[in-house]
Amino acid sequence: MAPRAVAGPEIERLIQLLAKLPGLGPRSARRAALALVKRREQLMEPLSAALARAVETVRVCSECGNVDSCDPCTICTDSKRDASVIVVVEDVSDLWALERAEAVNARYHVLGGTLSALDGIGPEELNIDGLVRRACDPLVTEVIIAVNATVEGQTTAHYLTDQLRDAGVAVSRLAHGVPVGGELDYLDEGTLSAAIRQRRPF
Amino acid sequence: MAPRAVAGPEIERLIQLLAKLPGLGPRSARRAALALVKRREQLMEPLSAALARAVETVRVCSECGNVDSCDPCTICTDSKRDASVIVVVEDVSDLWALERAEAVNARYHVLGGTLSALDGIGPEELNIDGLVRRACDPLVTEVIIAVNATVEGQTTAHYLTDQLRDAGVAVSRLAHGVPVGGELDYLDEGTLSAAIRQRRPF
Repeated sequence: MAPRAVAGPEIERLIQLLAKLPGLGPRSARRAALALVKRREQLMEPLSAALARAVETVRVCSECGNVDSCDPCTICTDSKRDASVIVVVEDVSDLWALERAEAVNARYHVLGGTLSALDGIGPEELNIDGLVRRACDPLVTEVIIAVNATVEGQTTAHYLTDQLRDAGVAVSRLAHGVPVGGELDYLDEGTLSAAIRQRRPF
Repeated sequence: MAPRAVAGPEIERLIQLLAKLPGLGPRSARRAALALVKRREQLMEPLSAALARAVETVRVCSECGNVDSCDPCTICTDSKRDASVIVVVEDVSDLWALERAEAVNARYHVLGGTLSALDGIGPEELNIDGLVRRACDPLVTEVIIAVNATVEGQTTAHYLTDQLRDAGVAVSRLAHGVPVGGELDYLDEGTLSAAIRQRRPF
């Protein structure tokens, strides 16, 4: 016997789709759907409009792989940014993190993942050709590889360094060390060793 | 200086609204928005359509307070349900929980909250008049008060019992006891005492 449908088909469909969002399971999707239904004017209608608008406008930048409502994206066309530096990230969420931190005022290049033999992700699955093409532009002088400090990230970084050898750009990577506000007692050996090795004059 | 806009205005708006859903904060709303943008065909477009459809169709049942795409709702018009019993719940989520459990095949009445002097919620804020009116229907013989076992829930239950005195219906409430699958060691004294007091012959 199929489980009894608890709410109408429209609400069930909404719950089913909300449950696919990261961070929401079946139970929290039900809570979210109920919150939407209850706050119709303040939440459901605006969210519906915002989603429809996003479906209509949001696209992937053909230059850097960022998502935006224009192509090339706002960052790629921003003349106030340093066009000589490209920051390579794995994912759009990493780009957003660097932008929130206002860590760098340059352009980005989104790889779309990392090399992973286990998951069958080779160089052709990533946006690497585009990066090499952009790095060959005489305007570009430095590529900062800002991938995650994971094994896959570091493997990808080494591969990229190889690929960029003939592009005539300086290739750099993020510093390893103690996170700002971090306590030594809670840090792993690898981070502590790196922080000592790469110590800076006071 | 205002924080730098990280994504386009359409995505920022989406993030801002997703963050208002229960269970999602600013960070998980960003993750959710990114998942939507990345899974355009499989997720963003269907969710947009489902939300638009829900905005169009979902309404509150004027009879019982349930949410559904028709009024009176599917449960109120379901002729296979026992029309002589009304199960009173605080919220639609409680109705859904009872329906998922297939605990009862009756009709419901959603109060919309509990009496709470602290939050300034009196009887006129709740859907109590509607309950008394429905309970006076000669077809109805029993009202099961299925509110939460909290102080506010129990206060509300006592108030409802008073209000239903002249309606000519039997008023019952949920049993207290050991949850199915529960371990005695982890239960509070109140529950254990109730379970002993209300013990049943084997």
